[in-house]
Amino acid sequence: MPSNPQILLASRPRGAATVENFRLVVGDTPPLEDGQVLVRHHYLSLDPYMRGRMNEGKSYAASQPLGEVMMGGTVGEVLESRNPRYAPGDKVVGMGGWQEYAVVDANAPGALRKVDGSQVPLSYYLGAVGMPGVTAWYGLTQIIAPRAGETVTVSAATGAVGSAFVALAKARGCRVVGIAGGPEKCRYATEALGFDACIDHRQHGDVKSMSRALKEACPDGIDGHFENVGGTILDAVLLRANAFSRVALCGMIAGYDGAPLPLQNPALMLINRMRVQGFIVSEHMQLWPQALQELAGLVVAGQLHPRESIAQGLASAPAAFIGLLHGQNFGKQLVKLI
Amino acid sequence: MPSNPQILLASRPRGAATVENFRLVVGDTPPLEDGQVLVRHHYLSLDPYMRGRMNEGKSYAASQPLGEVMMGGTVGEVLESRNPRYAPGDKVVGMGGWQEYAVVDANAPGALRKVDGSQVPLSYYLGAVGMPGVTAWYGLTQIIAPRAGETVTVSAATGAVGSAFVALAKARGCRVVGIAGGPEKCRYATEALGFDACIDHRQHGDVKSMSRALKEACPDGIDGHFENVGGTILDAVLLRANAFSRVALCGMIAGYDGAPLPLQNPALMLINRMRVQGFIVSEHMQLWPQALQELAGLVVAGQLHPRESIAQGLASAPAAFIGLLHGQNFGKQLVKLI
Repeated sequence: MPSNPQILLASRPRGAATVENFRLVVGDTPPLEDGQVLVRHHYLSLDPYMRGRMNEGKSYAASQPLGEVMMGGTVGEVLESRNPRYAPGDKVVGMGGWQEYAVVDANAPGALRKVDGSQVPLSYYLGAVGMPGVTAWYGLTQIIAPRAGETVTVSAATGAVGSAFVALAKARGCRVVGIAGGPEKCRYATEALGFDACIDHRQHGDVKSMSRALKEACPDGIDGHFENVGGTILDAVLLRANAFSRVALCGMIAGYDGAPLPLQNPALMLINRMRVQGFIVSEHMQLWPQALQELAGLVVAGQLHPRESIAQGLASAPAAFIGLLHGQNFGKQLVKLI
Repeated sequence: MPSNPQILLASRPRGAATVENFRLVVGDTPPLEDGQVLVRHHYLSLDPYMRGRMNEGKSYAASQPLGEVMMGGTVGEVLESRNPRYAPGDKVVGMGGWQEYAVVDANAPGALRKVDGSQVPLSYYLGAVGMPGVTAWYGLTQIIAPRAGETVTVSAATGAVGSAFVALAKARGCRVVGIAGGPEKCRYATEALGFDACIDHRQHGDVKSMSRALKEACPDGIDGHFENVGGTILDAVLLRANAFSRVALCGMIAGYDGAPLPLQNPALMLINRMRVQGFIVSEHMQLWPQALQELAGLVVAGQLHPRESIAQGLASAPAAFIGLLHGQNFGKQLVKLI
């Protein structure tokens, strides 16, 4: 059995998360029991939701236990199998965690999913054709449910969710406006991803300025908003929201590191007769096949152009993750292991 | 034609609304034209939404014009008619405003509705079997949509909306917890209105204390909340909200007089995967007949016990309205004119 480098959660953050909260160790891969497979991970997924799990206490996901391997999505290849449904060489997506190998009970519901690596690059199953893509799909189709001609907005526009969101929303005939950090990302959003406009939140750091920028980019107001960030951005969106607009609350990364960030004027939800709805995509597994099919189709058709930030080697995962929390990634953040 | 005492909006509030913002004048009732009727008002309705209309600028309702008769719901009797569908003696509900008489274009859609004053007291058509009752019905059935056994909460529990809400929610098998101001209202809520428990927000003025009181009154958490007040109450409700809970945003009276009241921790909407939805009942007229039928049935069956605060005479309307904004009413606030 190969030795297995792993990254554990060593301590919980006080305020901002740092690389010191993680520890690299070398573990073993135990011999396979009946029903299990041994997977060699090719890529780890790094996602903002992991920051919430690093805290103790109430969140939508179970807290990450201290001293255990960081949980997370992985894509890889089966090396050995004692499960009749899997054979060595199969490409699989799972929740293998921050480690080079995983021994997986492949019969557990949702533990592994075989994927076809021939049409879609393997790494995409952690992004555009994986959890982030389905996240965009759910918020857009199940909460925002836009009509053609409506204006929809998304924060963290060039990230894994945002880039899937714009492709899905353009396919439905919407005007799509992104919010991203920095001129390079904003240029990429409009030139490569298909956004009709993109607002640099670093140029519009307060509510008034962001609200003015939204007014200019959304002359007919905002009918739907997909929120990955919260804080100033959400405050400004509410000021430009149309009557009967919808907000899909997916992430509020702006408040992950410290005290809760208030919403300045919640009465706007009433004045605008809005619907604001939080969700977590893993609670809607029955919709994944439908979503993944549309997302894979958009990739194959060249209408969804995900960009990736790839860190090299397991040891780089903590720093890449901290960078992700500060917007230093550009597109889907991955760690390449092989 | 009779002379017609009227109350106008004389000035817009700076901060808190006061009686000085209103002016009593005596107008005329012009001769009837074809299609019109002359209505003698028996009762005016005073409702919190009127405070929003006193401001200039964006709200869900048109701003009340300065120097014009205050808009508002009325119930009364037809004195003269040049409309074939109405005859002297008919009892009618309308939006006659703060005046003793109104000349109404009875053919305009929604301008007048004939009511049967024999089974339900006339004043109830401004409360339990009128706009406030339908408001409770809409929020409960169309947004909260509770299952039997769920726990639902409502602020301003003994008001016109709250007392209809509890009757409708009990009829659906819910545990219903009210929030009201003062021990007398709380006692009335549980002893007369049918609430399972009622929390005195004057005893629990901060979020922590209100949250503890909600925990005690709602041991299984909160599945649905009907918000008339906002501020501290909404902050505390979010801390006790269950996964997949729903909030119907109907009013945020706590913030009507001044600067916007922030929502302290909007990330709870995400963490709890909540749906928060604002609405205004006049935008859903197609549902009124169904709602009014259920409400009238509950009144006749003795399951809905609305309480009324009745001010005497048109001149008392401004002070009664200011009192309403400060919770000095006890039940539906009316002004009796005849």
